[in-house]
Amino acid sequence: MKPALTGTFLDEITHDIPSQNWRDRDWDNDFATMKEVGIDTVILIRAGYKDQVTFNSQVLQEKIGKLLPVYTDLVQLFLTLAEKYGMTFYFGTYDSGNYWLNGDYQTETEINQAFCEEFIRRYGDYQAFGGWYISHEINTYDEGMMQVYEELSRHLKKLRDVPILISPYIKGIKQFGETAISFNEHITAWDSIFARLKGIVDIVAFQDGNVAYQDLPHYLQANCQLAKKYGLTVWSNVESFDRDVPWKFPPIDYRKLRYKIEQAEAAQVDKLITFEFSHFLSPNSTFPAARQLYQRYWEWITQR
Amino acid sequence: MKPALTGTFLDEITHDIPSQNWRDRDWDNDFATMKEVGIDTVILIRAGYKDQVTFNSQVLQEKIGKLLPVYTDLVQLFLTLAEKYGMTFYFGTYDSGNYWLNGDYQTETEINQAFCEEFIRRYGDYQAFGGWYISHEINTYDEGMMQVYEELSRHLKKLRDVPILISPYIKGIKQFGETAISFNEHITAWDSIFARLKGIVDIVAFQDGNVAYQDLPHYLQANCQLAKKYGLTVWSNVESFDRDVPWKFPPIDYRKLRYKIEQAEAAQVDKLITFEFSHFLSPNSTFPAARQLYQRYWEWITQR
Amino acid sequence: MKPALTGTFLDEITHDIPSQNWRDRDWDNDFATMKEVGIDTVILIRAGYKDQVTFNSQVLQEKIGKLLPVYTDLVQLFLTLAEKYGMTFYFGTYDSGNYWLNGDYQTETEINQAFCEEFIRRYGDYQAFGGWYISHEINTYDEGMMQVYEELSRHLKKLRDVPILISPYIKGIKQFGETAISFNEHITAWDSIFARLKGIVDIVAFQDGNVAYQDLPHYLQANCQLAKKYGLTVWSNVESFDRDVPWKFPPIDYRKLRYKIEQAEAAQVDKLITFEFSHFLSPNSTFPAARQLYQRYWEWITQR
Repeated sequence: MKPALTGTFLDEITHDIPSQNWRDRDWDNDFATMKEVGIDTVILIRAGYKDQVTFNSQVLQEKIGKLLPVYTDLVQLFLTLAEKYGMTFYFGTYDSGNYWLNGDYQTETEINQAFCEEFIRRYGDYQAFGGWYISHEINTYDEGMMQVYEELSRHLKKLRDVPILISPYIKGIKQFGETAISFNEHITAWDSIFARLKGIVDIVAFQDGNVAYQDLPHYLQANCQLAKKYGLTVWSNVESFDRDVPWKFPPIDYRKLRYKIEQAEAAQVDKLITFEFSHFLSPNSTFPAARQLYQRYWEWITQR
Repeated sequence: MKPALTGTFLDEITHDIPSQNWRDRDWDNDFATMKEVGIDTVILIRAGYKDQVTFNSQVLQEKIGKLLPVYTDLVQLFLTLAEKYGMTFYFGTYDSGNYWLNGDYQTETEINQAFCEEFIRRYGDYQAFGGWYISHEINTYDEGMMQVYEELSRHLKKLRDVPILISPYIKGIKQFGETAISFNEHITAWDSIFARLKGIVDIVAFQDGNVAYQDLPHYLQANCQLAKKYGLTVWSNVESFDRDVPWKFPPIDYRKLRYKIEQAEAAQVDKLITFEFSHFLSPNSTFPAARQLYQRYWEWITQR
Repeated sequence: MKPALTGTFLDEITHDIPSQNWRDRDWDNDFATMKEVGIDTVILIRAGYKDQVTFNSQVLQEKIGKLLPVYTDLVQLFLTLAEKYGMTFYFGTYDSGNYWLNGDYQTETEINQAFCEEFIRRYGDYQAFGGWYISHEINTYDEGMMQVYEELSRHLKKLRDVPILISPYIKGIKQFGETAISFNEHITAWDSIFARLKGIVDIVAFQDGNVAYQDLPHYLQANCQLAKKYGLTVWSNVESFDRDVPWKFPPIDYRKLRYKIEQAEAAQVDKLITFEFSHFLSPNSTFPAARQLYQRYWEWITQR
């Protein structure tokens, strides 16, 4: 048995995936399954989004105000479970859904600096904590976001010197149609981004669902080369939801998942993670098709 | 145990929620569950919509024609089950999906006057019948609709003097974006609506999913004050489906449901109902996430 | 017991229906269920679509290139199961999703001629193979497509002289709104289409979900008359998914399915097929509402 996917995002503060309405023991059960299938890394997709938060943050209460109440401290829960199952936990930053999207990069950075300090103060002793995930996604060079990455990264490294992960998307044809950029434009943009992020970000995990399946190998290989040129570790974010149907979003077809895994392995990326196990690839999912996907995936893993 | 939600809509004639394909014994089973969790009021969302009807109506056959066949008399079924489980049944009026939307309020009213007469003739002896629900929804002042409410209400009261319920929506940012009206415009509009509907409509249950979560308390309190000023009873329609994701519509996140319930209770509304139990909040739902939502909801209710 | 639906499409290469992630034994199980409910005909919706294929085709490898890998030979699987359960298998042609849509009918035809030759070479000995399904759908007269049908049909008949099926859609109000064509325009268009396809295509199975329910009887009867005038066999494609809700697509409401079946039987079509059993009408479906729909359907069938 050689597990393919060894990391997953955790998505309980989301803007486009419906809730499964799990409580602590449901999450414990799913972490146990993750452990069994070889997952050693869990990444909180974001610790807060607009008015939703994963723990009672004093900082966000002051800086954002009017938050939805927290009935379960998800950061504590996920850290406890990661520790119980021997996994590494990455903490995802707060996304205001506002400041950075309207050009106010400074406020987005400042909120997150204080918010991450609060996280370390409250949860810094958990052994499972082992990485930062900057949740703000980009697809091309953006000077404002470069400054967020720089200032936030410097601060995070001082708070705790653990790897910093980003998971950008390709401005590809499947998501952007006519406004997609070409392969060469992608390479040029990311060459300058990586030149800038060198030493600031440690790991880059491109989302793999934005380009045509036939072009994926090309992108995977080029992204690997480019990242390695600047000393970055390369993971692939193997999306387990289906972008090809009008329903946004059901679990992906097994054949597409396996193909994307095979291509990422062929490109020799350092690690494969997925967005995300619990909804789309778990035998405990509320999507029956995810339970089937799990069976197909697991039969394949145990046979190879 | 203090149940929060004590009423639910019944939605088997719908324009946007998929069918669960239940038969009589499935409904019986779900009414039994409703009873267990404290639901004492069921509201038929509409007794007919365009060419779909809940019973073989001679009136609609004549006035609309070409109806889809009725294989099960749902009005009889729901009244029988409401009686069996000691609940009050509200009868929802017919929505042509046509006349009133094209400005012909008179025809919409006349059809419904005859249709509700037929309902009383056929089902008026059921003890469970205890309210009228005027299913035509409005969000701002509309002179034509005021006339529908006035004429229909006068007629309904003559047929049977039981409470008349409406469930309007707020023309809020979550549903209308740039064309939403402001809080003050909402108050001004509903002040004049209630002034007009005083003594005509008895209960108003605003839908609670059209405004930002942070603004909800403000709206709930203002709506309460305004309705009480005109002698109306105030319920809150706590939506149990999620409006925040592209999939239209999965069961809501438990945290959002509980927050909306807590805010409605804080505003001291007279009763909380939901749209709706059977799809989105029932352990018998065809949505697995609804079964989880039920567990979360019920754990909370039994602990408080 | 008088089964209504005796045929179904098989949709494992799709552009808009999510995957159920079934393996061979899941399909075997579902074929067993189909057999029990009276299905004697299975129609592969398409043997390939863009870069997805149902078997390792040398022809498509050469002519299309860069295909997604095939982990299970679905054509072999479906033919084996059809043989096991005594069903007739229709082979659906390849849809490039490209050439014919951009006016290059010649390339679309040539690819399919070679591809169908390959199919006969590899799978022609299976006893279950009993029909061709030309998967390219039209709704009005299209000279280019007429040529595809003519040239492809002539070729297919030479490869194996078995019935040729098409399943067009009506350019109706439910799918096209303001750009829909009128009933008379539909009749005029299809009169000229059938005049052209006479002797080329054997069976026509119009999709039944594109027009208003109240207009369906009219269309069914007219399509029947028109097809019989030109010596075509008429089937009805009774869609088992719901087109009336924003979610694209859940299983249909039982009442609508039954109504459409009753109308097709009243119009005396030769056979009723559905798109499609396994997702939307099977007790083995990953959609819980489909399992309910199956129960309703089967109770009705066994009672009549």
